[in-house]
Amino acid sequence: MDEFAFIDAIKQHTYKQPSIIKGVGDDAAVFRQSAQDIVTAVDTFVEDVHFSRATMKPFHIGYRTLAANTSDLSAMGAVPAFYLVSIVIPESWNEDELKGIYKGMAELGNTYKMDLIGGDTVSGKELSLSITVFGYVNRNKARYRNAAKPGDVVFTTGTLGDSAAGFFMLTNPGEYIDKAFYYRRHRMPSINADFASELEFLPRLALNDISDGLANEASEIAEASQVSLTVYEEQVPVSTHFGQFRDDQQFKWKMFGGEDFELIGTVPKKSWEDVKQIADLTQTQVTEIGHVENSDDSGSDVFLVDRGQTKKRLEKKGYTHLKQVKR
Amino acid sequence: MDEFAFIDAIKQHTYKQPSIIKGVGDDAAVFRQSAQDIVTAVDTFVEDVHFSRATMKPFHIGYRTLAANTSDLSAMGAVPAFYLVSIVIPESWNEDELKGIYKGMAELGNTYKMDLIGGDTVSGKELSLSITVFGYVNRNKARYRNAAKPGDVVFTTGTLGDSAAGFFMLTNPGEYIDKAFYYRRHRMPSINADFASELEFLPRLALNDISDGLANEASEIAEASQVSLTVYEEQVPVSTHFGQFRDDQQFKWKMFGGEDFELIGTVPKKSWEDVKQIADLTQTQVTEIGHVENSDDSGSDVFLVDRGQTKKRLEKKGYTHLKQVKR
Repeated sequence: MDEFAFIDAIKQHTYKQPSIIKGVGDDAAVFRQSAQDIVTAVDTFVEDVHFSRATMKPFHIGYRTLAANTSDLSAMGAVPAFYLVSIVIPESWNEDELKGIYKGMAELGNTYKMDLIGGDTVSGKELSLSITVFGYVNRNKARYRNAAKPGDVVFTTGTLGDSAAGFFMLTNPGEYIDKAFYYRRHRMPSINADFASELEFLPRLALNDISDGLANEASEIAEASQVSLTVYEEQVPVSTHFGQFRDDQQFKWKMFGGEDFELIGTVPKKSWEDVKQIADLTQTQVTEIGHVENSDDSGSDVFLVDRGQTKKRLEKKGYTHLKQVKR
Repeated sequence: MDEFAFIDAIKQHTYKQPSIIKGVGDDAAVFRQSAQDIVTAVDTFVEDVHFSRATMKPFHIGYRTLAANTSDLSAMGAVPAFYLVSIVIPESWNEDELKGIYKGMAELGNTYKMDLIGGDTVSGKELSLSITVFGYVNRNKARYRNAAKPGDVVFTTGTLGDSAAGFFMLTNPGEYIDKAFYYRRHRMPSINADFASELEFLPRLALNDISDGLANEASEIAEASQVSLTVYEEQVPVSTHFGQFRDDQQFKWKMFGGEDFELIGTVPKKSWEDVKQIADLTQTQVTEIGHVENSDDSGSDVFLVDRGQTKKRLEKKGYTHLKQVKR
């Protein structure tokens, strides 16, 4: 494969973001942002660790990996702007498949007005994608996970566990209701970019995206804010046909599944009505799922009140990539 | 390995760059830059493609990979500011070795006042490092490779071919003069950050870093600027003891070796004295190696005038990672 021809094939010829001064084509990209703060994050996705060709087409792989990174921008309250892609290419991938990955990213990019401004292409033994995303947020309005306070309402967007359910359907073929919905939730997750940035006027908001499971993300907020969070199982929002799965599957997927790229947040009680209004405005489902309490002697924990009204400490057994093996 | 303990071990506890608002510890990093333009680039380095434990310790791997990326900032005239690191970790690497990589990066970071502000750690089959660097340059002062014009002086910094010579020494043990110098040039290359940014006052300057070999980088300037470059072989600067190697090795390494992370630039003749003064000021070696001409019917080429004063078209057989196999 000719690296230069490949880069030419995947590069954008115009940019949507006026802050871009130089995109693809020199030693580095250049941009300008004088009015707002700049938010940036990188994530790497490895074949057969984070995704598999058995359950996704190259297009989906591109779409989903960029969505996962862009979701980090929403979790900071930032508006997505652009991204860099560094790809390690093994011999087992052909040029058309690789272009498919970039098409998937471009599709998500078009949806959220993001531009591809640079990257790198290298050879290796396994396919991996490192995506660096950039977004903008008004000064001092980035949303941190350390902002939760006792008395806050805990909420989530959307429905949880659908991506894990979709993955299960794809890897355990059979008769299921609403396959297309769950497939899409796994392969082409939408992110809550508008909702997150429209909450800017709120004086205080702790925010995380649920990439590694509700339990894990709630725990990150609890630890960073030095508070405890109590979540009511029966309030955790699930999709219409989630009941078709076994109870233990439902529980595992909605609490620990992750990768729905929904948001978990906490706001003062007096802001909860505002959150619901912004949700209406941006056509986002929001659900109150619990509240924030003082942390006790045992530390900053997450408690679950189960369907039998028993309150128990929730383990943080979310999806942690480093410990995980092929799934 | 515990991902959180590992991140804690490698993260900086204070930041040198005042523009950093939030570093490691949330969904993304946040920074502010209202006065200058922001320059960013990503490169990925894969074990046994871009580096090998046979010739480098983990410390060197970290130092050299961050140097390679930071060199892209210098090639844009930007002052280095900070970086993100995404690492794919295979089972064959232990925690101490991994920490060694980050120590090497921190060493270079301290030299150039750069901060590690975020990243990702994931598991995979082969070690790879994706480094995203950020730098600042005064508005409209980023240096592009398309700025060369006929009549310009072509110059390079430092001496060329040393990294390739060091790699040869490391992989072909024997008696050599000044081993430590060549090892260091291969494992811990210095970059021309001060020199590049101090040239800011020059009205016009085309700049590239020589990561993929002089021939290749000269060709990038020629093509981007739609000019031709003529380089005089006997003017290409080499190190004091470079003569210990065979003529064909010397030629290959200095013209195509790359990875010395020196700079190649072109400036109007009237600016050449200024370049030399800034070189003195920043203790940088600079050498005039040729000049820029109009491109002819055959396109934008690089010509070499060899020691016999014969002018020939130079092939662009630089180091292109995608085509390269393990070396």
